[in-house]
Amino acid sequence: MYTLYYSPGAASLAVHAAIHETGADHQLVNVDLDVPRTDDYLRLNPQGTVPTLLIDGVAHRESAALLMLLAERHPEANLAPAPGAPGRAEWLQWTVALATSLGGPFRHWFYPQDLGRDTHDEASRAPVRRTLEAGFERIASHLAAHGPYLLGEQFSSADYQLCMYMRWSRAMPKPATEWPELDRLARLVIARPAWRSAVAMEKLRGWQLDGDQ
Amino acid sequence: MYTLYYSPGAASLAVHAAIHETGADHQLVNVDLDVPRTDDYLRLNPQGTVPTLLIDGVAHRESAALLMLLAERHPEANLAPAPGAPGRAEWLQWTVALATSLGGPFRHWFYPQDLGRDTHDEASRAPVRRTLEAGFERIASHLAAHGPYLLGEQFSSADYQLCMYMRWSRAMPKPATEWPELDRLARLVIARPAWRSAVAMEKLRGWQLDGDQ
Ligand SMILES: N[C@@H](CCC(=O)N[C@@H](CS)C(=O)NCC(=O)O)C(=O)O
Ligand SMILES: N[C@@H](CCC(=O)N[C@@H](CS)C(=O)NCC(=O)O)C(=O)O
Repeated sequence: MYTLYYSPGAASLAVHAAIHETGADHQLVNVDLDVPRTDDYLRLNPQGTVPTLLIDGVAHRESAALLMLLAERHPEANLAPAPGAPGRAEWLQWTVALATSLGGPFRHWFYPQDLGRDTHDEASRAPVRRTLEAGFERIASHLAAHGPYLLGEQFSSADYQLCMYMRWSRAMPKPATEWPELDRLARLVIARPAWRSAVAMEKLRGWQLDGDQ
Repeated sequence: MYTLYYSPGAASLAVHAAIHETGADHQLVNVDLDVPRTDDYLRLNPQGTVPTLLIDGVAHRESAALLMLLAERHPEANLAPAPGAPGRAEWLQWTVALATSLGGPFRHWFYPQDLGRDTHDEASRAPVRRTLEAGFERIASHLAAHGPYLLGEQFSSADYQLCMYMRWSRAMPKPATEWPELDRLARLVIARPAWRSAVAMEKLRGWQLDGDQ
């Protein structure tokens, strides 16, 4: 039994969708990010971020690590190539690369406080935008040569991670869906029943791709 | 046979030490980061960073992912708890958390260009310093309760990652070794023959811990 502490559309979304892929029993706890975290929550996650995944009463953090953990605990869900199988090294690499090259910059995009500012101005926002667009650009060229998924023909948890970050770009000057290869991947991913269940449970709206809730 | 593209003391150091733990055959290629990368290197690593690890002619990137890959390919080297074993989830979590919460901010510390600046000034440096110190602080409190290694009594590749990042802090206003729990971990780690071999091969100097080269 899993307990996922989430916030709608936050870094918890990829983990939420992956849980639906496994079919495992789970409950959801909605963490209101607009108010200070409770002491109880800070005991589970000292940084006060989501997601936190409780497994047998033990709290686990970091969306990329949680995806790897779920892939490992549920091999039958095919969230990742098995150790030693083709694509395994690429899956490890993408899982880490997405967390560092998109996850980090997106925090800067949404949390100027991390950069010591109350709000962004044009000068502080521009380099973050450049970094994110360069990241999407690199991924799009990879997909152009080796798509449609990050691992080629094979869907993996890394595609959920990527699709979650793409969704975060929807109000940016250049949303990730403007890269055709990324748009194609997103359409494949959001058509999956597990993604659709997670999106429905989180009551998400506002990503204008056909079929998105 | 592994080929490691490295630069002395860079993000390649933890991977280099881990290769020595495995005892695997390997060769080293020193990438001069002071000059533009060659086209040959950019084909292996489009971002032009180190490390890159060549395995059977295929290039792999991202130090955290490379550590996970080495742990998986060489279970006998005990770089990580086996899947399903105690400590496994924590190892995944630390491997990702170190890459995101120290690796990302350290890039900002050393590469103000990533923030759109030629050089840092006090205002741009201060929040990066705060983030890094908060990261070391959180790790130190974890070690105080659950040390001496990140996984308790058990050494893992995550300790190499941490020790590498700690070393990068040596010229910062508050080096990571000022936290006693971090200093203790570093002393345990740099005493390992594999770390010492990597440090000797990379001809590193200048981290003033007893026994460090
Ligand atoms: N590296 C973490 C990042 C988690 C994170 O920053 N989550 C954001 C929401 S997307 C959050 O909880 N923000 C609230 C806060 O920082 O107070 C992960 O991927 O799990
Ligand atoms: N996330 C990457 C970061 C690699 C990285 O930024 N390496 C630095 C040296 S520590 C580098 O190659 N810098 C040269 C450059 O960016 O041009 C990893 O951990 O492997």
